[in-house]
Amino acid sequence: MVEHTTQIRVRYAETDQMAYVYYGVYPQYYEVGRAEWLRRFGLTYRQLEESGVIMPVAEVNMKYLRPAKYDDLLTQKTRVMEIPDKRVTFISEIFNEEGKRLNVGRVTLAFVDAGTMRPCSAPKLLLDTILPYFEDNEGKDTPVDQ
Amino acid sequence: MVEHTTQIRVRYAETDQMAYVYYGVYPQYYEVGRAEWLRRFGLTYRQLEESGVIMPVAEVNMKYLRPAKYDDLLTQKTRVMEIPDKRVTFISEIFNEEGKRLNVGRVTLAFVDAGTMRPCSAPKLLLDTILPYFEDNEGKDTPVDQ
Amino acid sequence: MVEHTTQIRVRYAETDQMAYVYYGVYPQYYEVGRAEWLRRFGLTYRQLEESGVIMPVAEVNMKYLRPAKYDDLLTQKTRVMEIPDKRVTFISEIFNEEGKRLNVGRVTLAFVDAGTMRPCSAPKLLLDTILPYFEDNEGKDTPVDQ
Amino acid sequence: MVEHTTQIRVRYAETDQMAYVYYGVYPQYYEVGRAEWLRRFGLTYRQLEESGVIMPVAEVNMKYLRPAKYDDLLTQKTRVMEIPDKRVTFISEIFNEEGKRLNVGRVTLAFVDAGTMRPCSAPKLLLDTILPYFEDNEGKDTPVDQ
Repeated sequence: MVEHTTQIRVRYAETDQMAYVYYGVYPQYYEVGRAEWLRRFGLTYRQLEESGVIMPVAEVNMKYLRPAKYDDLLTQKTRVMEIPDKRVTFISEIFNEEGKRLNVGRVTLAFVDAGTMRPCSAPKLLLDTILPYFEDNEGKDTPVDQ
Repeated sequence: MVEHTTQIRVRYAETDQMAYVYYGVYPQYYEVGRAEWLRRFGLTYRQLEESGVIMPVAEVNMKYLRPAKYDDLLTQKTRVMEIPDKRVTFISEIFNEEGKRLNVGRVTLAFVDAGTMRPCSAPKLLLDTILPYFEDNEGKDTPVDQ
Repeated sequence: MVEHTTQIRVRYAETDQMAYVYYGVYPQYYEVGRAEWLRRFGLTYRQLEESGVIMPVAEVNMKYLRPAKYDDLLTQKTRVMEIPDKRVTFISEIFNEEGKRLNVGRVTLAFVDAGTMRPCSAPKLLLDTILPYFEDNEGKDTPVDQ
Repeated sequence: MVEHTTQIRVRYAETDQMAYVYYGVYPQYYEVGRAEWLRRFGLTYRQLEESGVIMPVAEVNMKYLRPAKYDDLLTQKTRVMEIPDKRVTFISEIFNEEGKRLNVGRVTLAFVDAGTMRPCSAPKLLLDTILPYFEDNEGKDTPVDQ
């Protein structure tokens, strides 16, 4: 389990007339979490794309426990539980300023060769960068209950 | 199973630099499907809100089978499988112009009393409107495989 | 002046906690109006892109006269006032179901050669298609007051 | 002229298939700039709303000079040129990491009493907070060329 924490300020644009963050906004938050998770390793999603691999989303699960509100400063914890192979799964947990858990998301992305548009394995650039961190954490993982 | 079909034209705003519809846009499509599903019964989500019930989303599952592209005229089939009680679950299937299935979504909404902000049962206005249609369809349902 | 009318149903996603359509949503509506304006001539923006011309936006002016609300069925009138040259300017007027004018937008797009990424003139494909309609309307134009 | 600088990281969601930030995303960026401009004075837009004043947008002008791209870390300078009265106008300038100016926006918001839904003057809470800063800056302003 390799985890990274980011913060996101809720925009007015992201609220709806219920005065909640619209349910379709959370995928954007997860995306920010994934990008910052990678950046922590000195890698960017832009670099992965430029290396010829795109990562379309294959599956998403989202649970809405409590609403996020305008101007909330959210804390998002992003984890990858398993070493990526043909796919990679990220888990995001979003908390408000009082530490209440608002939302849990699980996003699975595929690796696709941008040249052939065929599925491929996780790029070496990614694996070389993150594998040492997975080894460091071995045996210390606690599963996230969704 | 009570099903309704709607069409949605993909906006440029909804694409991303992969030239696919961004994965976080589908919840908006499902929302359109739900609204039109209700309207078919002569009921609007606006009326439900005005009657004092809001419907926050509790859980979402999305599967991405093939990408939607700019200007695609998508066909969306929206179903409710069970008579709503404390919650209601909608299933959306999205197809492109060639009839290929692109995406399947399952969205569960809770009923909440807008006055007390406490969970409540499906409003009578909704049940009275849709129950006759469920009875008409009894025994003819085929489950949707996700 | 060549005008086309389209209808747009306001999505819940497009509202904000003021219960108005968020001010940043209108550019999406204008985009829909432009796409349908083109389609009326048997041309799509997708075809223009595939012919090697992209059309980035250069300038936008928006006036908000009255709020649009959830589930409103908006009517949008889209006009091009002048024959496109290096740029093309669209004017959109958005009305609610009572015929009240809610919003006026003016969007100017540039033509850019997708190969060289340099500004270019309006593509022949576009001009050949729309010029006959401009000629038909000659002398009958009334300026839109913004 | 009272100016505040914020940073915004471009999300994948905000790109379109041209690989540019979609033109309708900039109003969201301006909104972030306004919120942080207020926060610098120890005031939040949420507080203003809770005090009974909403601020619908009346007019927007946007100029697109160069495209913003995915993952760009944008710098936004937000200014208010004049002491707010019935309306307040914010100017936003957005720069990329190389210091190139990408976009200029001018957004005018009205003050509306949330009880009566009638236009009103800038709330005392806002004026009391920001007036001292305007006085400090008097005579030092340089107009922003759009």
